[in-house]
Amino acid sequence: MQLLDKLHFNEKGLIPSVIVDYQDGQVLTLCYMNRDAVEKTIEAGKIHVFRRSQNRLMIKGETSGHIQLVKRVFFDCEGNSLVFAVEQKVAACHAGYKTCFYREYIPKTDSIQISGDKVFDPDKVYK
Amino acid sequence: MQLLDKLHFNEKGLIPSVIVDYQDGQVLTLCYMNRDAVEKTIEAGKIHVFRRSQNRLMIKGETSGHIQLVKRVFFDCEGNSLVFAVEQKVAACHAGYKTCFYREYIPKTDSIQISGDKVFDPDKVYK
Repeated sequence: MQLLDKLHFNEKGLIPSVIVDYQDGQVLTLCYMNRDAVEKTIEAGKIHVFRRSQNRLMIKGETSGHIQLVKRVFFDCEGNSLVFAVEQKVAACHAGYKTCFYREYIPKTDSIQISGDKVFDPDKVYK
Repeated sequence: MQLLDKLHFNEKGLIPSVIVDYQDGQVLTLCYMNRDAVEKTIEAGKIHVFRRSQNRLMIKGETSGHIQLVKRVFFDCEGNSLVFAVEQKVAACHAGYKTCFYREYIPKTDSIQISGDKVFDPDKVYK
């Protein structure tokens, strides 16, 4: 796989990957992939991540069914990070929002506001 | 600064930040910030990064003048990463492209193609 030759994994064997919506470009989440996760993601056409807290490879949306279908793949000038444009099923965030970046910081007032709509109820999805 | 209380810096004191164009949402680059860099970025309204290779804080575009003016600030559900929507002066990538993610991997043909236009000539900017 030509892509793998271009990438540099960090000292833990991971590379950060930005996941964006392929239609509106919105950043959905930032995840970490090891070499296996990049390979599996490309081969299956579905985002796979290396879940650091569990130390294992998993498909994004394993529990919720909210998978991410890969549409386009980009990598940066130094091969230190990836961008995947995906079709997001339901929503990316476990808190029920489309994007994990649903909180906005407002410097002027030093305040935080919710800037996204809730798409699902986490209590009903993660039982 | 309320934002800082919500963020988790990694064991090196860094947090990954995704920089996107505030108009079209395109991902421009992924950089790392320490606590100082986040503060300076918010206070000055210009992206500051912790340059790992040089082990120092710097304003993005220090050499080229291609600075990034902060328009909006988002942080993820776990406080592990940031998204800054910015007005990019000239271009984000030192290679002369608007985005650092100017190379696209095409899984079907296992090939790589340039998917962005060159905005400036690096040899003329970095002398």
